Amino acid sequence: MSYLHQIKACNGYTLKDFRPFYVDEVQVGHIRSSFAEKLQSWPAVFRVTPAAVYLAPDLRSFATRTEKVKDVLKALLEKGILPRWHGEEYPVTASSREAALFAIDRGAAPYFGIRAFGQHLNGFVYDGGQLKIWIGRRSPTKWNAPDKLDNLVAGGVPHGVPLGENLAKECWEEAAIPSDLAAQAIPVGYISYRMETAQGFKPDVMYCYDLELPSDFMPQCQDGEVEEFYLWPMEKVAALVRETHSFKKNCNLVVIDFLIRRGFITPEHPDYLEMVAGLRVPLEA
Amino acid sequence: MSYLHQIKACNGYTLKDFRPFYVDEVQVGHIRSSFAEKLQSWPAVFRVTPAAVYLAPDLRSFATRTEKVKDVLKALLEKGILPRWHGEEYPVTASSREAALFAIDRGAAPYFGIRAFGQHLNGFVYDGGQLKIWIGRRSPTKWNAPDKLDNLVAGGVPHGVPLGENLAKECWEEAAIPSDLAAQAIPVGYISYRMETAQGFKPDVMYCYDLELPSDFMPQCQDGEVEEFYLWPMEKVAALVRETHSFKKNCNLVVIDFLIRRGFITPEHPDYLEMVAGLRVPLEA
Repeated sequence: MSYLHQIKACNGYTLKDFRPFYVDEVQVGHIRSSFAEKLQSWPAVFRVTPAAVYLAPDLRSFATRTEKVKDVLKALLEKGILPRWHGEEYPVTASSREAALFAIDRGAAPYFGIRAFGQHLNGFVYDGGQLKIWIGRRSPTKWNAPDKLDNLVAGGVPHGVPLGENLAKECWEEAAIPSDLAAQAIPVGYISYRMETAQGFKPDVMYCYDLELPSDFMPQCQDGEVEEFYLWPMEKVAALVRETHSFKKNCNLVVIDFLIRRGFITPEHPDYLEMVAGLRVPLEA
Repeated sequence: MSYLHQIKACNGYTLKDFRPFYVDEVQVGHIRSSFAEKLQSWPAVFRVTPAAVYLAPDLRSFATRTEKVKDVLKALLEKGILPRWHGEEYPVTASSREAALFAIDRGAAPYFGIRAFGQHLNGFVYDGGQLKIWIGRRSPTKWNAPDKLDNLVAGGVPHGVPLGENLAKECWEEAAIPSDLAAQAIPVGYISYRMETAQGFKPDVMYCYDLELPSDFMPQCQDGEVEEFYLWPMEKVAALVRETHSFKKNCNLVVIDFLIRRGFITPEHPDYLEMVAGLRVPLEA
């Protein structure tokens, strides 16, 4: 086990059983062949070939594409092919969130292998000169990664919601951080990874934020998604990341980035070049 | 002009007139064909083909390779084909500094297109809550980028010298930062770029450091390489980077990284994804 091991665990894929997914001749994702074949039943929405999947070219507008795809997803949900409806819409894009070609339910995003955007916040405290970081344990009833350790605040960014607004909402829901305090969070870059999963493919971008919290601040979960919070010395968190599978996989990367930016992991580390590069893999569909 | 423009200015290359340079079947650099042809005069050291340049395979040890290549470089210097002798040795490596296959004079590094390692330090001060950063103007007599603005401390890392030791040396020489203060510099990652130049090719790695300086600290150049120092508000430095060619090219990238890590450039910036990715291009020879 090592930091690099955790980075590689978020970047394992072969895509050998996947087909590229195109909108308007622009690749926006990857679809597993077994799922692509299910989409063949809706030729007015998806053109499925052995080599690729295309959104039907006569679906021209953002609204039409979003609506027609939603109808298909609802039908797939009824058939039990899609397991759940998330109720949040993600942008489908080959570049930035703003350049979305249509929107799709978050639960379906990995099935289409589209880039998903999230926000993760490192909440930290200086306690007598020692840097400590707030860590949450995810609820045992969470659909994804139950019981795993998590960054203090983390969430997906739905289509059309400004980053600042979404961060404030997540800060309140997950940790009862008031909006004036959330507004002090400093954006510090992003992490990207490309991971093959049971659902499909996740080429994700996580915007990262650092927020120094008052020493008397106690996070309180508002939405039941976090079971418990811990304020741990950085060294303890570093060891958990380095030596265990305690964290939700992608949260390890957010901690490693923090450790690098704060000088806890130094350029003398034999994996330094590979780690820094590995936290920001090229942005492709 | 834009931040992204500065990043792209450090990443312009076609390599169409270059040949890969191999040591032991491992590519460690790129050599411009016109320079490769000069090396044909030393077949015991370099095997030059129309497609590639190979270090002679019977040169086995680090010491032998270093010595034989040095003899060639000295001859090229006498002929005026290499313009100057730097007097510092750089590692020749396909991965980390520690995995060097031989060492080569720093002045020759771009002619062989080998990865060069440097250290750049952001020296900053909080002045009444405002973040200010120390900027140096390079001496008008510098061989490279005379008169250009520079990070407070910046230098190459010679072969075999530990990073901490080299940083302390550079901190003293360039800005009279004492070693106990230099030791407080926080390593915060690295920046990589790949740039074609008049000399050849530079696939460089710059280790970056942040150092908060006492408000009464005044940098003083010890080695004549810096003409003048300025303590400027971050916003002014940001504008100089964004809108002018005042800085030595690669120093722009160190400032942009600082602006991103400190939240001066936010994820709302339309070029954000491309900027963060562009600061760390993949590490290849």
